[in-house]
Amino acid sequence: MQDPGTVTIVGAGLAGPLLACSLAQAGRRVDLYEKRSDPRLRGPERGRSINLALSTRGIHALRRVGLADEVLRASALMRGRMIHHPDRSLTFQPYGNDDSQALRSVSRAGLNLLLVEAAARLPGVRLFFDRKCTGMDLASGTLEFAEGRIQAGFVVGADGVYSAVRSALQKQERFDYSQEYLGHGYRELTIPAGPGGAFPLEPGALHVWPRGAFMMIALPNSDGSFTCTLFWPFEGPNSFAALTNERDVLAYFELQFPDVPGLVPTLAHDFLHNPTGSLVTVRCRPWHHAGRVVLLGDACHAVVPFLGQGMNAAFEDCTVLADCLARHGANRTAAFVEYEARRKEHVDVLADLCIDNFLEMRDRVAARAFVLWKKLALLLHRAFPRWYVPLYVMIEFTLIPYADAVRRARRQDRAVRGVAFVLLLLLAAIVVGAFLR
Amino acid sequence: MQDPGTVTIVGAGLAGPLLACSLAQAGRRVDLYEKRSDPRLRGPERGRSINLALSTRGIHALRRVGLADEVLRASALMRGRMIHHPDRSLTFQPYGNDDSQALRSVSRAGLNLLLVEAAARLPGVRLFFDRKCTGMDLASGTLEFAEGRIQAGFVVGADGVYSAVRSALQKQERFDYSQEYLGHGYRELTIPAGPGGAFPLEPGALHVWPRGAFMMIALPNSDGSFTCTLFWPFEGPNSFAALTNERDVLAYFELQFPDVPGLVPTLAHDFLHNPTGSLVTVRCRPWHHAGRVVLLGDACHAVVPFLGQGMNAAFEDCTVLADCLARHGANRTAAFVEYEARRKEHVDVLADLCIDNFLEMRDRVAARAFVLWKKLALLLHRAFPRWYVPLYVMIEFTLIPYADAVRRARRQDRAVRGVAFVLLLLLAAIVVGAFLR
Repeated sequence: MQDPGTVTIVGAGLAGPLLACSLAQAGRRVDLYEKRSDPRLRGPERGRSINLALSTRGIHALRRVGLADEVLRASALMRGRMIHHPDRSLTFQPYGNDDSQALRSVSRAGLNLLLVEAAARLPGVRLFFDRKCTGMDLASGTLEFAEGRIQAGFVVGADGVYSAVRSALQKQERFDYSQEYLGHGYRELTIPAGPGGAFPLEPGALHVWPRGAFMMIALPNSDGSFTCTLFWPFEGPNSFAALTNERDVLAYFELQFPDVPGLVPTLAHDFLHNPTGSLVTVRCRPWHHAGRVVLLGDACHAVVPFLGQGMNAAFEDCTVLADCLARHGANRTAAFVEYEARRKEHVDVLADLCIDNFLEMRDRVAARAFVLWKKLALLLHRAFPRWYVPLYVMIEFTLIPYADAVRRARRQDRAVRGVAFVLLLLLAAIVVGAFLR
Repeated sequence: MQDPGTVTIVGAGLAGPLLACSLAQAGRRVDLYEKRSDPRLRGPERGRSINLALSTRGIHALRRVGLADEVLRASALMRGRMIHHPDRSLTFQPYGNDDSQALRSVSRAGLNLLLVEAAARLPGVRLFFDRKCTGMDLASGTLEFAEGRIQAGFVVGADGVYSAVRSALQKQERFDYSQEYLGHGYRELTIPAGPGGAFPLEPGALHVWPRGAFMMIALPNSDGSFTCTLFWPFEGPNSFAALTNERDVLAYFELQFPDVPGLVPTLAHDFLHNPTGSLVTVRCRPWHHAGRVVLLGDACHAVVPFLGQGMNAAFEDCTVLADCLARHGANRTAAFVEYEARRKEHVDVLADLCIDNFLEMRDRVAARAFVLWKKLALLLHRAFPRWYVPLYVMIEFTLIPYADAVRRARRQDRAVRGVAFVLLLLLAAIVVGAFLR
């Protein structure tokens, strides 16, 4: 039997156990249910998206529960983007002006294990693995698992993009919902570590092979290997559907990513045998029901991965939800309403930014004008660190809510254009003055 | 056992039996499954949206299967909008320049019965009532009913906005889907017929009580009664939530719709006891799967009712789908691809137009500038019937695909503005000329 004050969290991926830590530290009882097996009992999982980019928002949320230092110790610093051009030349584009403005590459499996262990250490937290949630009866508050049913008074759906808890809310009238797939999918490849664990590419960067309509990226792992992700259209001329045999794959890589075949000995085989993932944006509203059920992270706002903000935004959800619950005490509906009001606008904006950044990464990063503008923006930021903060820096390296960051970036850019215009006028006046003298 | 060439249509509402007629006339075998009971065995149903506005697109589709004349005989002509102002005054806004440009009010239950009877008369059509489809196994092509399963080679999902067939497609990866609810709901009231079946309001019009943030409409029934639909916000100051007792309801109607309480003797009781419906826009993509399943009407593109185009657009789907199937023979995938390509863009545009028209009906129709502009547009249309066709006329009274109609309306309005500008210039020249003489 569950204690009536217990919070039942469905999903012990990343946000679920983080929220469990936060609530247990505030003295609540938490039951955490997860469909996969206990990560403490199995070796590291071979799956999709095996490393993630942790940034300031996520670090802040981890710090709140006292886990930031441990996570950062196991992470690899990425100070900027290393652009791989088709002629094998490289250019480095820093993210910020110093190491406080750098992304951290972390292993998804390692982080999952660390968070589960941290939750398990806290009094009041119970963990249940191998329990696949299949739905919920909202009227009775019964959670349905493949392995049986449980009665729950307060349910948090942290069960990801294909959330079973959300699917119960979805059957309610007046529930807005959308799922939109990109025409691009992704496939992963591994660049193995060199002899003695040496990094075959620069370790302090996120590597990008921008090719206009498609791209490949690679993030460093702490063991010296890199995880590459190729983002490609599903169909059409340059697509997953177009390459079906090893010779074509190798020829294509030699042409488009000439530095890669030498780094991945099993390239063609892996390419043809690894699964293709799809990329979806999920939006919905409301995020809660009857003061009893609330959604979190990908379950209510899945985004495409091009800003590395999915996990960071989900961790921010945890902080805000815990704050709202603490502030409103027994009035859970009020807590949920405030939580959604503080998050919804911002993650909606984030969803659009993530799609925009796909265009930036696969296309614009290779353009000279873009590189110049990025350099100028960082120079302005260095000269006027409080007055001018590039949008990318606000998203990755501050806690400014996403929509506020976009509004501020627009104001800044208008101001820069205004100043540039005045400077041009002054320059013209000086030139004319010198000419007339 | 089903014949392998049989088309299984799920849903015998309006589009389902119309498509059945069309396919059976082309020599196909059709099995039609419907969750409700046989309309031939029961009396007319008391339900929501009991009359519908039939317009040119729907009439054209009915004519193709030889049913237009029979339907039109049972319909009531609506030549324009009758605006009911808060001071009880009335103004009439014609839809077009003659009776060829008029809407037809038809009874949903009567039309359903007529279509089911027509389908039942055709050889090759089998009808199954009281069979509620609950889902479909796409891999095996098994349709699941509450009453058992059937194996089907070719399934048409015509099962409406909460389509079970669509919900099976929705579980596929890369299926885009959205459902968006309006903040307004609707509630129905009946204005009974006068003594001897006399119409208590002008019968040849669609009546509108535009009140800015909300509105009421009434459509004539052939028995002399009117069905009123009140569109109101769910919550807030003027909302369903705000009126909870008979005295408040009557006082509110006296203030906002002063001619109505005298026409509806049971107004306050009906208002408080009738159910509140919600208004949703559904979009999805793709509309078909594996050359085996295809969606139709509300199942793939539900719209809000403010242009009366939901049924008309669904009937247009039937015509286009039957054409595509006839053209591509055994290649069903090609037929489905062409069908979706010919319809998707247009019903997406329609969905936006329907939401726009809510604003027009509840707000702009009461404004003097709007009335003047509508009059001018109809004058232009009368003077240049081929060159200038108002958007509303194209939507309701032509077969021009919706998105093409919107593009043409934009071109026309640019041209009108251009001509008006030139005329103003000429006028100015004449005035200046006269002044200087």
